[in-house]
Amino acid sequence: MNKVKLDEVDHQILDMLIDNTRTPFTDIAKKLLISAGTVHVRVKKMEEAGIIRGSSLTLDYVKLGYSFIAYVGIFLEKTHQTKFVLERLNQIPYVTVAHITTGKFNIFCKIRAKDTTHAKNIIFKIDDIDGISRTETMISLEESINDKKRLMHTIFNEM
Amino acid sequence: MNKVKLDEVDHQILDMLIDNTRTPFTDIAKKLLISAGTVHVRVKKMEEAGIIRGSSLTLDYVKLGYSFIAYVGIFLEKTHQTKFVLERLNQIPYVTVAHITTGKFNIFCKIRAKDTTHAKNIIFKIDDIDGISRTETMISLEESINDKKRLMHTIFNEM
Amino acid sequence: MNKVKLDEVDHQILDMLIDNTRTPFTDIAKKLLISAGTVHVRVKKMEEAGIIRGSSLTLDYVKLGYSFIAYVGIFLEKTHQTKFVLERLNQIPYVTVAHITTGKFNIFCKIRAKDTTHAKNIIFKIDDIDGISRTETMISLEESINDKKRLMHTIFNEM
Amino acid sequence: MNKVKLDEVDHQILDMLIDNTRTPFTDIAKKLLISAGTVHVRVKKMEEAGIIRGSSLTLDYVKLGYSFIAYVGIFLEKTHQTKFVLERLNQIPYVTVAHITTGKFNIFCKIRAKDTTHAKNIIFKIDDIDGISRTETMISLEESINDKKRLMHTIFNEM
Amino acid sequence: MNKVKLDEVDHQILDMLIDNTRTPFTDIAKKLLISAGTVHVRVKKMEEAGIIRGSSLTLDYVKLGYSFIAYVGIFLEKTHQTKFVLERLNQIPYVTVAHITTGKFNIFCKIRAKDTTHAKNIIFKIDDIDGISRTETMISLEESINDKKRLMHTIFNEM
Amino acid sequence: MNKVKLDEVDHQILDMLIDNTRTPFTDIAKKLLISAGTVHVRVKKMEEAGIIRGSSLTLDYVKLGYSFIAYVGIFLEKTHQTKFVLERLNQIPYVTVAHITTGKFNIFCKIRAKDTTHAKNIIFKIDDIDGISRTETMISLEESINDKKRLMHTIFNEM
Amino acid sequence: MNKVKLDEVDHQILDMLIDNTRTPFTDIAKKLLISAGTVHVRVKKMEEAGIIRGSSLTLDYVKLGYSFIAYVGIFLEKTHQTKFVLERLNQIPYVTVAHITTGKFNIFCKIRAKDTTHAKNIIFKIDDIDGISRTETMISLEESINDKKRLMHTIFNEM
Amino acid sequence: MNKVKLDEVDHQILDMLIDNTRTPFTDIAKKLLISAGTVHVRVKKMEEAGIIRGSSLTLDYVKLGYSFIAYVGIFLEKTHQTKFVLERLNQIPYVTVAHITTGKFNIFCKIRAKDTTHAKNIIFKIDDIDGISRTETMISLEESINDKKRLMHTIFNEM
Repeated sequence: MNKVKLDEVDHQILDMLIDNTRTPFTDIAKKLLISAGTVHVRVKKMEEAGIIRGSSLTLDYVKLGYSFIAYVGIFLEKTHQTKFVLERLNQIPYVTVAHITTGKFNIFCKIRAKDTTHAKNIIFKIDDIDGISRTETMISLEESINDKKRLMHTIFNEM
Repeated sequence: MNKVKLDEVDHQILDMLIDNTRTPFTDIAKKLLISAGTVHVRVKKMEEAGIIRGSSLTLDYVKLGYSFIAYVGIFLEKTHQTKFVLERLNQIPYVTVAHITTGKFNIFCKIRAKDTTHAKNIIFKIDDIDGISRTETMISLEESINDKKRLMHTIFNEM
Repeated sequence: MNKVKLDEVDHQILDMLIDNTRTPFTDIAKKLLISAGTVHVRVKKMEEAGIIRGSSLTLDYVKLGYSFIAYVGIFLEKTHQTKFVLERLNQIPYVTVAHITTGKFNIFCKIRAKDTTHAKNIIFKIDDIDGISRTETMISLEESINDKKRLMHTIFNEM
Repeated sequence: MNKVKLDEVDHQILDMLIDNTRTPFTDIAKKLLISAGTVHVRVKKMEEAGIIRGSSLTLDYVKLGYSFIAYVGIFLEKTHQTKFVLERLNQIPYVTVAHITTGKFNIFCKIRAKDTTHAKNIIFKIDDIDGISRTETMISLEESINDKKRLMHTIFNEM
Repeated sequence: MNKVKLDEVDHQILDMLIDNTRTPFTDIAKKLLISAGTVHVRVKKMEEAGIIRGSSLTLDYVKLGYSFIAYVGIFLEKTHQTKFVLERLNQIPYVTVAHITTGKFNIFCKIRAKDTTHAKNIIFKIDDIDGISRTETMISLEESINDKKRLMHTIFNEM
Repeated sequence: MNKVKLDEVDHQILDMLIDNTRTPFTDIAKKLLISAGTVHVRVKKMEEAGIIRGSSLTLDYVKLGYSFIAYVGIFLEKTHQTKFVLERLNQIPYVTVAHITTGKFNIFCKIRAKDTTHAKNIIFKIDDIDGISRTETMISLEESINDKKRLMHTIFNEM
Repeated sequence: MNKVKLDEVDHQILDMLIDNTRTPFTDIAKKLLISAGTVHVRVKKMEEAGIIRGSSLTLDYVKLGYSFIAYVGIFLEKTHQTKFVLERLNQIPYVTVAHITTGKFNIFCKIRAKDTTHAKNIIFKIDDIDGISRTETMISLEESINDKKRLMHTIFNEM
Repeated sequence: MNKVKLDEVDHQILDMLIDNTRTPFTDIAKKLLISAGTVHVRVKKMEEAGIIRGSSLTLDYVKLGYSFIAYVGIFLEKTHQTKFVLERLNQIPYVTVAHITTGKFNIFCKIRAKDTTHAKNIIFKIDDIDGISRTETMISLEESINDKKRLMHTIFNEM
């Protein structure tokens, strides 16, 4: 698990792309007083090293009709079913995050749904996966923070 | 909370940008047999409607030295401190997600740290926020799913 | 707490009114082969004895926009605040039921709200009542049974 | 789930019927300065729209010998048994309310019984339903609030 | 379940026997200014009515080498096994009390043992009864109150 | 804590008194083929050694109108209040047993009451003792075993 | 379980060996003004009596790459599997301590691992032992005290 | 936190000392076919690097009259008191291990005591430390595994 070495220029490039992935490389180049080719090379290097795994949009789920968020804690019948259950969870698109966890749950996941009834159907679908003995649901009343950009900037400033 | 109406073309544009926000508009235009200008207009419309709130990179945190993920449940002394506590959490960049929740916790948040000792320091910083009486931590042994793209595609296919 | 004695005729009258409180006394009289006056006297007697405390409509809350039901368990700082807290709960119309209970909660109540955000505001209002130290919320995904008529019929058949 | 539109007159009619379902339509008509026929038409409309689902008596259960109230949380062996279990619960008249819930219970229900021994028998009957693995009971020491009329009035005033 | 009527004289006899069951009836008679025969008749009456079910010694268990007390909460696999399990518990003399309870346990019992190792063996014997799925033990660090006499006197003074 | 040595004769005497404390010493003497004086001397010796601490009646609480049993777990604000709280509990005659315990409760006690309302009042009285922060109540649905005689016989047979 | 009698000289020898097991017997002899032969005899005696069961190094696990400590609570399917499960745990060298416990767990053990991923693998290995139904893990953020020497000195000073 | 590099010879020396710290260096030298001086140098090096922090006896606590082991979970009033509380715990010799932990406890520690009464006194002493709001105790019925040697051998074999 040897960490890739990034230099100051890499950090600055990442710092700008984090806020807007569509920033043209020429703009980045101008700001950092380097050539656009250098930007291109550096980004490519970080993609190949696996540091940059891709990019995505930040959508407003509420405006898209998905205002219901819940965390679902899963108890398995036996732990050796973990891998199988995760594969099945991965087939339910409403499950956006899943972790193997310490504490009382075996698996802990996050779901996004349209409303209470939709959430019920998703939870029922989860409950019906073979190997799951029980689930416990905690409902979000408000998503107050959802922002990885602050962390990303901190990581690059620290380095 | 009236939902914005998106048509088939919007969906297809979103569908392509979700997978790679840097896809040139000319490529999208070619695939959908429309003009690049139309793509531009549609994206702008969705940005102004607030559906597209931005874009960001997907980084590999493990490669960046942040392999430790924990969920922290927060008990407040009194609920009217919720807003104040969320503001303070927002100043800790390692807190990437925070929810007001039902169930036993008042606030539930997710942190990313370098290792056990780093996590301890972050949790101690959270514990020291005025108004927080106690926290409970659940540690991730493996982040098995973290993928909002499947959900996004599903939303647009459903519409 | 001496129970009022009801005879067979009283039971039959109650049995009919339970299903439809607006059933004309003349209809009841015809069915039971007694006079409408007798029906009137019997109902009056049961009202005065406090057995019949009133009547009410059964409305469809979902159609009225109130589709969100939650149970809220309340922990008090000190039990001698119970009476005071109940008076304040009584001023929140969304609290339709409240019990002093054994087990981990001091008070356990039921609320009806429009949606998640509305529920959050009601729960916050409860949390802000003096003397309440903490609440835990359990959300209903479906109200599958809500029917006291079966019980009422059983009581009268048993008597 | 399109909501029926009710106007001011409908609200006033409902407001009066909520407190006493036996209020003669002529009384309502006089108060609202409309004809009794109009009252009749409006009530019929609301019944057909499903907003008014019926009417019932409010009885004093303590006077009828039913002073014991308990909430029973049900754990199922598997969630796909939910529907079957609810049908069986529906055959026990002492179960007056049942919800599918989030949190640790799969189903949460309310029972009314005569006394401790009667409650034990009802709980045993519930425990014996196929598919139920365990139940937890919370006993009411006092039913402090049980009043949907405040909510109903609030709904109509808000509209 | 009609309660036997006891008069003032019965109460005074009970009041004296509670503190020392071996008090000679002649002593009781002298104190109450009645005949020893009357005392005899009254005691017999209360025995036949089942109010006095017997008498027993109060021993000092610590002096007898039994200083370890624990409460054991029992979870059953299915509630219909309750009766069978209680019969088996009844064959373990170290189980001195057992209740069918509300809350998380199905059966709750009290055991007296010599020491930790003895307690472990008793708990293992309980755990091995068919139909018991799990037990939870709470250990007494000090038996601070164990006195039914105060209650008995209160009952007779109240009557 | 040196244990008193009891011989075979002592055990046999205890064995008979356990079942009926009023058994005349002459009857015991006859059965054991010893003199009544010896019985008297032995009992006195065991009383002075503190092994026999007294005797009491076994009453039928249900017949006396006390059919309600509950276990109350007590959380203290601070453990140094333990002694003080126990003194106050000792003034409530309905508290028949109290232990300092390991596990989640600081003190665990047993109460006997007439009915739900009476139990509520007793629990409220406990809750109002200074130093108690919270209580949790578990209600007995049936007292299935309450018998120390089996244990006593076992102790003497083992010795 | 009769305790071996140790005299003042034994205590002083133990007191010195506790801090450094490699202290030469001649040094101990000099300090205590006795012969080295006496030290030898006494140590031998305590070894034969089983009081001294051996000696070991105190290593710095963090420096050896084992910085991760967790406590794992184990729930068994049936208690009669306890012995078998302990034998299997004993084959996992990362399990350094295991207890049969009261409370909610059947077995409670301590593990040392290199990091989160290593811990996950150890926990999975434990979870896969036949007879174990579920485990709950609590992670150490810092091992603040790990010192039996203070206790050993206290024991010998007390004696 | 750079790890010290140990070679094969170091491992073999450690392997022998782990089992008996008093093994003469000449014995180790003979077995490994190296000089006693080399053994001395290597051990010194590992002591200076902090890998070997000392040595200690393995005593039989049961034979020394300390047969009672408990784990005590501590809840703090505020986390910033952690350091202060740990210092106070460190003054109680019966506390042999203490961790700052994730999950519901802030600090988790292990105590050894003579018996139930002694344990009660230790727990009360812990409860009286300023800053501790509550403790929960879990009692060991049997210490089935307590052996770090297996782990140590594994570590050196792995390296």
